Amino acid sequence: MKLSIEQQPTQEGAYPQGEGNIEKNSDFEITGDFQRFNACNDIFARAQWDPRIHTAKAMNWFYSMLGLKVKYKSTDGYTQKDYALRNAGWVVANLMMERSAHLNRHDGFLDDIRGYMKEDGNKVPVASEEEISLQIKKAGKLFGADIVGITKIDLRWHYTHKFDAKTLSEKPNELSEELTNCIVIGTSMEYDVVQTYPSALAGTAPALGYSRDVFILQSLSQFIRNMGYKAVSSLNDSAQAIPYAIQAGLAEYGRNGLAITKDYGPRVRFGKIFTNLPLLHDVPQKFGVKEFCEICSKCADACPAKAIPFGMPTDQTHNQSNIKGIKKWTVDGEKCFSIWANQGTECGICVRVCPYNKSNDTWKDRAYFRFFRWLASTRGKRLALWLDDFLGFGVRKAPHLWWKEKEIKY
Amino acid sequence: MKLSIEQQPTQEGAYPQGEGNIEKNSDFEITGDFQRFNACNDIFARAQWDPRIHTAKAMNWFYSMLGLKVKYKSTDGYTQKDYALRNAGWVVANLMMERSAHLNRHDGFLDDIRGYMKEDGNKVPVASEEEISLQIKKAGKLFGADIVGITKIDLRWHYTHKFDAKTLSEKPNELSEELTNCIVIGTSMEYDVVQTYPSALAGTAPALGYSRDVFILQSLSQFIRNMGYKAVSSLNDSAQAIPYAIQAGLAEYGRNGLAITKDYGPRVRFGKIFTNLPLLHDVPQKFGVKEFCEICSKCADACPAKAIPFGMPTDQTHNQSNIKGIKKWTVDGEKCFSIWANQGTECGICVRVCPYNKSNDTWKDRAYFRFFRWLASTRGKRLALWLDDFLGFGVRKAPHLWWKEKEIKY
Repeated sequence: MKLSIEQQPTQEGAYPQGEGNIEKNSDFEITGDFQRFNACNDIFARAQWDPRIHTAKAMNWFYSMLGLKVKYKSTDGYTQKDYALRNAGWVVANLMMERSAHLNRHDGFLDDIRGYMKEDGNKVPVASEEEISLQIKKAGKLFGADIVGITKIDLRWHYTHKFDAKTLSEKPNELSEELTNCIVIGTSMEYDVVQTYPSALAGTAPALGYSRDVFILQSLSQFIRNMGYKAVSSLNDSAQAIPYAIQAGLAEYGRNGLAITKDYGPRVRFGKIFTNLPLLHDVPQKFGVKEFCEICSKCADACPAKAIPFGMPTDQTHNQSNIKGIKKWTVDGEKCFSIWANQGTECGICVRVCPYNKSNDTWKDRAYFRFFRWLASTRGKRLALWLDDFLGFGVRKAPHLWWKEKEIKY
Repeated sequence: MKLSIEQQPTQEGAYPQGEGNIEKNSDFEITGDFQRFNACNDIFARAQWDPRIHTAKAMNWFYSMLGLKVKYKSTDGYTQKDYALRNAGWVVANLMMERSAHLNRHDGFLDDIRGYMKEDGNKVPVASEEEISLQIKKAGKLFGADIVGITKIDLRWHYTHKFDAKTLSEKPNELSEELTNCIVIGTSMEYDVVQTYPSALAGTAPALGYSRDVFILQSLSQFIRNMGYKAVSSLNDSAQAIPYAIQAGLAEYGRNGLAITKDYGPRVRFGKIFTNLPLLHDVPQKFGVKEFCEICSKCADACPAKAIPFGMPTDQTHNQSNIKGIKKWTVDGEKCFSIWANQGTECGICVRVCPYNKSNDTWKDRAYFRFFRWLASTRGKRLALWLDDFLGFGVRKAPHLWWKEKEIKY
């Protein structure tokens, strides 16, 4: 049986409770005003239907990711070569999206990702949820994920409706009732590419993150279906990734509105698979992010759009593009996106300057990152913040220098 | 202008000469009998048209990679879960191949891989071939390649004809005359998965290798086209990867008929991009493989099909599936493939047992591999071979142990 998310019970008590719940060990505070989010209010959907957001520049941003109407300049970081790399990064995600265009679907962005083949008629018996959970994580990493977590389906994070780009209206967001678990995968974006934000070159990082996610989601979900279970892959569509990532123990929530992971900071893209495979649930993990963000405002200081809040978390929203009823730091999506549209490519300055954005390419990098994470979680957090400045972290790398570096570390 | 490969000049002197040539620093000895290979004689093509190879079992092997008619067993390594993972590994390569099915193409296997978008109208000027070559290598690694080399187009390695699976006949293999350079990418297969050969589980390694290669080829070739140059992606189609990999300085040739790379041994899958982007050519590199293979016959000893030759390289061929006129170790493809068809999945025992197949996951692994490679290239090569046995390298890992390992290193 399929239920439209809209028809799901909304009263208290209808949401999952217990160990793996986001209330248990995270800093999300759900208030009585909580309302699930309608994907039509997402800023990228509004850029298509809402005349206040739907500008020629906004549309050019969409086109450019598809390799269309690319407006390169002579400015460092925005040249033809920079856009050439960024747009090449989008290719696999675009191919997977365009594969379903004849069905009026935008797989991975507005609709879940159509799988390759349906589930096998025979179910592999699951003797131990612990064992199969480890194997799912192993398979996820084999397919390229950097981090994998597992939680239960929590309808609060599913959109009430999806956006139909053809009719510019809402359509039902359905989820089979059989699906009970959610696997969250995360892929890290390359540190030294991210360090060139703002630039078109830096846009290669999210582009590749999306393409890699699509690769992993298609492979991992097919593995589950080949074992006889249902598995639906989702990227930006269907449900919100950040609360799922927190609930699956992969991240804490930061001032910049991003999921901050332990090993890659805010430099991670997430995907999710909804499944009926019996799995063990991870629980939210805290390592001091909220307390550190309270004394750090680097992202808010650096944001060219002034879209990131100072001060403490509140349940105030800026406009319809924010989810209602969660006490947290809330970013103004309208302001944020206006910068993207204006510069013709993504802005990720809040990722670059975040002290949790550190390289972990070498053992020295990893050792310092570990030290920083420890210090930032102690009463010495102000020292950690000072050190971060003193050591010059978060400073922009000039894009032409990235191109010139001979060392290849990937 | 497009030329059918068949119409290209075949007389001596028509092939590229000079620094980057395969004759210069490799152990391929091209004899006067040399003839380019017709892809219709490839064992996988023959499995479709040649009644001696075209058996029900051979066809089931093809089907199983597409997730069809999978015959799992209760034997360790051949269970539903093993095939589930292997076939999930094929998904991205399959999706990319099936994308062109309506054009009667088998992208990546019988035909080159259709790109996403044609080249930009404006060419990025190339001030330095050295610089752009480094940037192409950097981009290749960013997109996921483990090794990238560059050589010039050498028509000797291009098939005289392609195979048309629909009509079971040959069709022209065309290459634009403008294309002058060949970029070779290599992706390593996971060591501990390969150690479970023979098994369906081990088949995950080549499956994922193909899928990853397709990802990289689609992205890297689009990067080149976005810079205004032509770029055609090729996997198993169009031309032979091994001589190209040798010519691009990525590998030496081994007794098992495989390209042996410095860092990943025979555990690598190759793809190639033909382009008119001006590039600097790499040259063949030798690190002692031929001399070591002369005293080592582990692959020939272990081959269940007795398809790998003992003794020294010759220009003898076994049947029409071998290229003519190269003095080298030549594997009997008919015998080799009969094992694959019989067991319903790929055999890679010759990869597993090769002493150059060593893990490089940890610094200890890398240090030993470096020591082995050095010793194997000296007069102590017999000691290197003895040590390899003594330390237990190349022994099969039971597939159920792979599934049980908790440590996730990917």
